[in-house]
Amino acid sequence: MPTVYATRRAHFNAAHRMHNPEQSDEWNRATFGECNHPNWHGHNYVLEVTVAGEPDPETGYVIDLGELKRIVHERVVRHVDHRNLNLDVDFLQGILPSTENLAVVIWQRLVDALPSGRLHSVRLFESERNAVEYRGE
Amino acid sequence: MPTVYATRRAHFNAAHRMHNPEQSDEWNRATFGECNHPNWHGHNYVLEVTVAGEPDPETGYVIDLGELKRIVHERVVRHVDHRNLNLDVDFLQGILPSTENLAVVIWQRLVDALPSGRLHSVRLFESERNAVEYRGE
Amino acid sequence: MPTVYATRRAHFNAAHRMHNPEQSDEWNRATFGECNHPNWHGHNYVLEVTVAGEPDPETGYVIDLGELKRIVHERVVRHVDHRNLNLDVDFLQGILPSTENLAVVIWQRLVDALPSGRLHSVRLFESERNAVEYRGE
Amino acid sequence: MPTVYATRRAHFNAAHRMHNPEQSDEWNRATFGECNHPNWHGHNYVLEVTVAGEPDPETGYVIDLGELKRIVHERVVRHVDHRNLNLDVDFLQGILPSTENLAVVIWQRLVDALPSGRLHSVRLFESERNAVEYRGE
Amino acid sequence: MPTVYATRRAHFNAAHRMHNPEQSDEWNRATFGECNHPNWHGHNYVLEVTVAGEPDPETGYVIDLGELKRIVHERVVRHVDHRNLNLDVDFLQGILPSTENLAVVIWQRLVDALPSGRLHSVRLFESERNAVEYRGE
Amino acid sequence: MPTVYATRRAHFNAAHRMHNPEQSDEWNRATFGECNHPNWHGHNYVLEVTVAGEPDPETGYVIDLGELKRIVHERVVRHVDHRNLNLDVDFLQGILPSTENLAVVIWQRLVDALPSGRLHSVRLFESERNAVEYRGE
Repeated sequence: MPTVYATRRAHFNAAHRMHNPEQSDEWNRATFGECNHPNWHGHNYVLEVTVAGEPDPETGYVIDLGELKRIVHERVVRHVDHRNLNLDVDFLQGILPSTENLAVVIWQRLVDALPSGRLHSVRLFESERNAVEYRGE
Repeated sequence: MPTVYATRRAHFNAAHRMHNPEQSDEWNRATFGECNHPNWHGHNYVLEVTVAGEPDPETGYVIDLGELKRIVHERVVRHVDHRNLNLDVDFLQGILPSTENLAVVIWQRLVDALPSGRLHSVRLFESERNAVEYRGE
Repeated sequence: MPTVYATRRAHFNAAHRMHNPEQSDEWNRATFGECNHPNWHGHNYVLEVTVAGEPDPETGYVIDLGELKRIVHERVVRHVDHRNLNLDVDFLQGILPSTENLAVVIWQRLVDALPSGRLHSVRLFESERNAVEYRGE
Repeated sequence: MPTVYATRRAHFNAAHRMHNPEQSDEWNRATFGECNHPNWHGHNYVLEVTVAGEPDPETGYVIDLGELKRIVHERVVRHVDHRNLNLDVDFLQGILPSTENLAVVIWQRLVDALPSGRLHSVRLFESERNAVEYRGE
Repeated sequence: MPTVYATRRAHFNAAHRMHNPEQSDEWNRATFGECNHPNWHGHNYVLEVTVAGEPDPETGYVIDLGELKRIVHERVVRHVDHRNLNLDVDFLQGILPSTENLAVVIWQRLVDALPSGRLHSVRLFESERNAVEYRGE
Repeated sequence: MPTVYATRRAHFNAAHRMHNPEQSDEWNRATFGECNHPNWHGHNYVLEVTVAGEPDPETGYVIDLGELKRIVHERVVRHVDHRNLNLDVDFLQGILPSTENLAVVIWQRLVDALPSGRLHSVRLFESERNAVEYRGE
């Protein structure tokens, strides 16, 4: 039986700041540069969630992408869109909001909302030039 | 020797409808929603075909991408472009034209037209937000 | 006072066919080629609606783009998305659904739903390579 | 002599919030919705600056686009990139940072740094779906 | 009767070099910098040609975009694609190949191949960040 | 510990020509077609470099993408941007500049400038339609 990878793209806009509170302000400025700016900056994030599996013989779908859209919205987008990623999001408390860490947390938010073993990857674009991918490994 | 993955992108425009004729109209409407609309809808599909192999020492090519373009056109695009995927395409008869099923059938159309073991993946975008990939496994 | 042009982008997927019923089948085939295919084809249309005016001193907005999104959805997108443009749309009855004619009709659908004189242009992309613009003149 | 329009694209990332301090919190929430979120949100802004004029017979350029890039960086981008548009930018003090108002202010920042009458338009994209243009009129 | 603007996009790849042979090598290096590199560099140019007019009542078209594609190919693309713009193109002899000058020459190549008064604009992108437009004025 | 894949995108413009000097001119013309044009042609190349690893607990980064940008610029972009890939680049001497061969050489330029085992892939787009990827295997 074929394994097909189905991807749904979503968007959210958020403010954030790179700042490790366990380090000095000096260390943070030297390490993160302008990304440490105290009054925040922000991004239009693009999120691509990929689910793997056999197409259902009845529907032809690995997953109903409308249903995947709803899960991604419910579990992720509605919590982070038009929010401050350092201050406002329960499941990001204590997490340094690098794109890498965001992708890992988004994976954790989604993996239990999907059938076991189906989530394949989370890709997150912070800009056209910077992106990360996490595959749960 | 290095293995390089070479990708060629193609496009086609087609009408389709999600409808499983073995199920009731009610089931189809409930399952596929607006994608079940009886008078069809359509998409600008984007198709990316990836071939893997060692670059030929004489040409530097894994495959001549102009030749790959011709194969993809001959085996796939000319049969589906400006067509109805439910009604008009020999190799889609009896296939529910989900993006997933299309990708698997496109793989089957291409795999024998390429040197053995060289086809690596078929990616098909139904829209900017929805895409699938099939790797022949 | 400054005049600013504010643009909102929307999308819809639809089937259509270029066919002039007042002409012979032969004329239609010769004129429209593959776009005349009897079983329809389709597109992911991209629609850009531009409204001109002075930013409101209270809001900084020429128009609330969320409100513009709602107007475009209500007046246009919900009628054409996942539809057949030749068969299903009241306001396209008797209209040959070229991108040009669609843009003019979309203008007519929007102009009265917006404050007088504010609609500036309607751009409609049938594909990445083909687009039209209508400015109400 | 021909008039040619030359455009340079730039990017910046910033946090902002829609909030009119002369109105009540209730009015702001009702008017701006999630864009009024108190802890800010943010965007990857795309800025397109267009200069009009005759190509110089010696250089073929309306303007050296490298020089235009430097002007746009010096006058605009370095002040707003990785900044909070409500708090951090001298030339935005007292300005409600709608995309419309930003475009007008960016015009004002650029018009005197370019030869008289050459600045043609400022386009600012807040996202792929929302954009504004200002032409100095 | 409505005036609609119809745009067709084309592509070509070419080598070029910014060099004014009436000036010294030193002047050229100081003026054009890396664009003056003696062994050439190159671009994937994107060309957008816009034609204005009333949609034909029989066809719904301002112009058959397939026909416009053929004209643009015949008059422009086949002469410049995979060519050196300084050395190989008859109609660019003696022209400094800035994007501005290319757009003006492309206009001149197209204006007589189209019905009188119909060519509206030529836009030429040298890269995602640099573009010019010429409207025949 | 999670493995995250972080990607940085860069650009360069270059001239090149497909020509194998060990073969006859006739063979080269027959094999490479217009890509063999003697006076060169060129491209806007897009380069995506992916690094894999665990996010650093102190910074949240697999790699500082600003640092990756600097490495890619220093080791690759500054040597090939606005250059002729057949004539001007030390590390391309004797290499037929197909996109495949370029990707392999770019890998070799980067692998030793990054911590051992961290470089995951090099993707190189010659155009929107043609791309290759090399993963060091």
